[in-house]
Amino acid sequence: MSKANNPQLKSWVEVKPGSDFPIQNLPFGIFRTAETNARAGVAIGEYILDLAEIASAGLFNLSLEQKVSFSHPMLNPFIDMGKSTTNAVRARISDLLNSENSELRDNAELRAKALIKQSDAEMQKPLWILNYTDFYSSKEHATNVGIMFRDPANALLPNWKHLPVGYHGRASSIVVSGTPIHRPKGQTKADDAPMPSFGPSELLDFELEMGFITGKRTKLGTSISTAEAEDYIFGMVLFNDWSARDIQKWEYVPLGPFLAKNFGSTMSPWIVTMEALEPFRIESPTQEPEVLPYLKFEGKKNFDINLEVEIIPENGKGKTVSKSNFKYMYWNMAQQLAHHTSNGCNIQVGDLYASGTISGPTPDSYGSMLEISWQGKNPITMPDGTERKFILDNDTVVMKGYCEKDGVRIGFGECSGKILPAL
Amino acid sequence: MSKANNPQLKSWVEVKPGSDFPIQNLPFGIFRTAETNARAGVAIGEYILDLAEIASAGLFNLSLEQKVSFSHPMLNPFIDMGKSTTNAVRARISDLLNSENSELRDNAELRAKALIKQSDAEMQKPLWILNYTDFYSSKEHATNVGIMFRDPANALLPNWKHLPVGYHGRASSIVVSGTPIHRPKGQTKADDAPMPSFGPSELLDFELEMGFITGKRTKLGTSISTAEAEDYIFGMVLFNDWSARDIQKWEYVPLGPFLAKNFGSTMSPWIVTMEALEPFRIESPTQEPEVLPYLKFEGKKNFDINLEVEIIPENGKGKTVSKSNFKYMYWNMAQQLAHHTSNGCNIQVGDLYASGTISGPTPDSYGSMLEISWQGKNPITMPDGTERKFILDNDTVVMKGYCEKDGVRIGFGECSGKILPAL
Repeated sequence: MSKANNPQLKSWVEVKPGSDFPIQNLPFGIFRTAETNARAGVAIGEYILDLAEIASAGLFNLSLEQKVSFSHPMLNPFIDMGKSTTNAVRARISDLLNSENSELRDNAELRAKALIKQSDAEMQKPLWILNYTDFYSSKEHATNVGIMFRDPANALLPNWKHLPVGYHGRASSIVVSGTPIHRPKGQTKADDAPMPSFGPSELLDFELEMGFITGKRTKLGTSISTAEAEDYIFGMVLFNDWSARDIQKWEYVPLGPFLAKNFGSTMSPWIVTMEALEPFRIESPTQEPEVLPYLKFEGKKNFDINLEVEIIPENGKGKTVSKSNFKYMYWNMAQQLAHHTSNGCNIQVGDLYASGTISGPTPDSYGSMLEISWQGKNPITMPDGTERKFILDNDTVVMKGYCEKDGVRIGFGECSGKILPAL
Repeated sequence: MSKANNPQLKSWVEVKPGSDFPIQNLPFGIFRTAETNARAGVAIGEYILDLAEIASAGLFNLSLEQKVSFSHPMLNPFIDMGKSTTNAVRARISDLLNSENSELRDNAELRAKALIKQSDAEMQKPLWILNYTDFYSSKEHATNVGIMFRDPANALLPNWKHLPVGYHGRASSIVVSGTPIHRPKGQTKADDAPMPSFGPSELLDFELEMGFITGKRTKLGTSISTAEAEDYIFGMVLFNDWSARDIQKWEYVPLGPFLAKNFGSTMSPWIVTMEALEPFRIESPTQEPEVLPYLKFEGKKNFDINLEVEIIPENGKGKTVSKSNFKYMYWNMAQQLAHHTSNGCNIQVGDLYASGTISGPTPDSYGSMLEISWQGKNPITMPDGTERKFILDNDTVVMKGYCEKDGVRIGFGECSGKILPAL
């Protein structure tokens, strides 16, 4: 176990019970305040540690170029320095925030500049996402969709258990948590309609996903093995792959989802490092039939991350509609990256790879309204008595995620988005 | 007609008959020589005009920031200035190269610095491609594929004539003409095989396409009408959407092509501006049934661009295997962009939107080996007597494109790529 993960560590910054951001977490993000431009920070309790201030005070043993990266409005230059640097920075931040370390604790002037209340800051999109791929790696989700849209007896398509199915998504329309999204308009066609029509989507859905961010690039033509894959992963976020089911149904043959997805996707602002997630590794589900050699792996490659989704109507009380877990993933991240590069496709620093909807085995753990309401057949009742088959205008969908073990809770914060009426 | 398109214009730089780059063209690209870093240039005859040198000599009436953009290794900052600037720059270059203008013609010192033989330069990828979308807009191509893989009686899927089908591709693996690509490995499964296997693709294909580059951004949630669309398009390139048919067949349900495409795509280095293509507008094919209002358009939105594909074996004689034309496109670029943004998806500066394979009505105008050899049933015979059903190792595929009218030929140069054996 790395020193920074020690459950005994305490910070001199107050961390309330149930906080997502104890000293064992230290996720990276980009924030802005009324006084400062967008810059890099680390979450601790209810505060953000301003890394540009810490660097400029000389508390990091880094080159000038490395220090300057913290003043950049995107984390790409920082992540691009590689794990040797990013892990050293995380370890040093852990030292600086440690209750036994007086360097920052007893420097009132610097502390006042470098420690910002999260409530006084606005979180930004943490990085420039160069390429975005979405996988389809939850067996329960793929099975549910197959039962609904194809054939209950053969719910999974023949390729599904042989490779992690994935497709390219739109990088430009990924927004940070808190950014409202307008209900998309688009072409749809009812089965019994003679012609398609154009208008606001009537079947707007969320998809509960997680995404990982690559921090190391490859050269076109080369591949990454499952054993090497985790070295390429900087960290993880929560991800809502908003989906317009009616647009998707009409457009998606034969080349896949397009306008049903690219009107917006929401990511959480804090990137939790793979190092912080290390204690939460667990065994993967058994893969049967046996996978091809390039997809075989050793060790614990799944992660036990509790996930939940709440729908909050405007001025109303919210309802938790799903409790799932990232551990259910049939295909793990190492397999996804090995598969993605098996043909030589090159990876860049700042790519986002999303999991696909993460559904568990029971209806209360399904990761989309399509599954939860089973195509609208089983609407859920909200605290105010209204029903939800899909997402209504002015609903806010909030996703949360956290690991918990030995009294330490490593959380992801929120991935939240409000749906505004179509323009 | 803009002054720069006047067929009577002559340059003091020699332009041989049949050249792609007369003074009426002036496409933009990024080049490098043994002496200079990557920078912006314009093609004229067999030469490149070094725009950084011209700018630093004070021959452009531009701000310092605008001048500096020519020293950038990507065209994004230049294109981002908008059409008012890029068109003014093109008009000024037209003046400077005009045989009647002495400013550069008679300045031997500057001319020696600013005019570089194309054979002394290496063309680079001209821009950082932020998002890449591939459409599927040739009716002949979609019909051929439908006949081969689905149902000859219902070759086009129900949505095809109602919307320009498209999907997201991988931006990271787009390379510039001249970059060799290794044959991809991947999972494939023969229909009669009990299990898939992994190895080099045996059905490697080209796809003859063109792509347009956006030079203006939109805000998430907003749409572009067909009337506004061309204002967002900076220019066009030739595009080879290399495709591994055996990988595609196994992987592509239900979410579309992925590893069958993202091992590499090749673009031509010179971006021909929409202004240079203006004289070559022609009527679009009739669209029947009538399209929805947001896809209707006025005026000539197709372009008469001759296209051809040659396969050249190593140390052997090449064979032209396709002669097609961009005018065959059923869905035009204005419709593609209107559809892409109809749901609010945002456009960035430096996105590439490819047409999909451009097949004409006759077998000699098909845009892929899949169609030309009809799934390998009709192999073509090369000059050396060997056969081609698909692309073999060490074959080079060369795409060319040009418009011609009133004695003016506006060409795209080459989009060339050699397939190396799998690694």
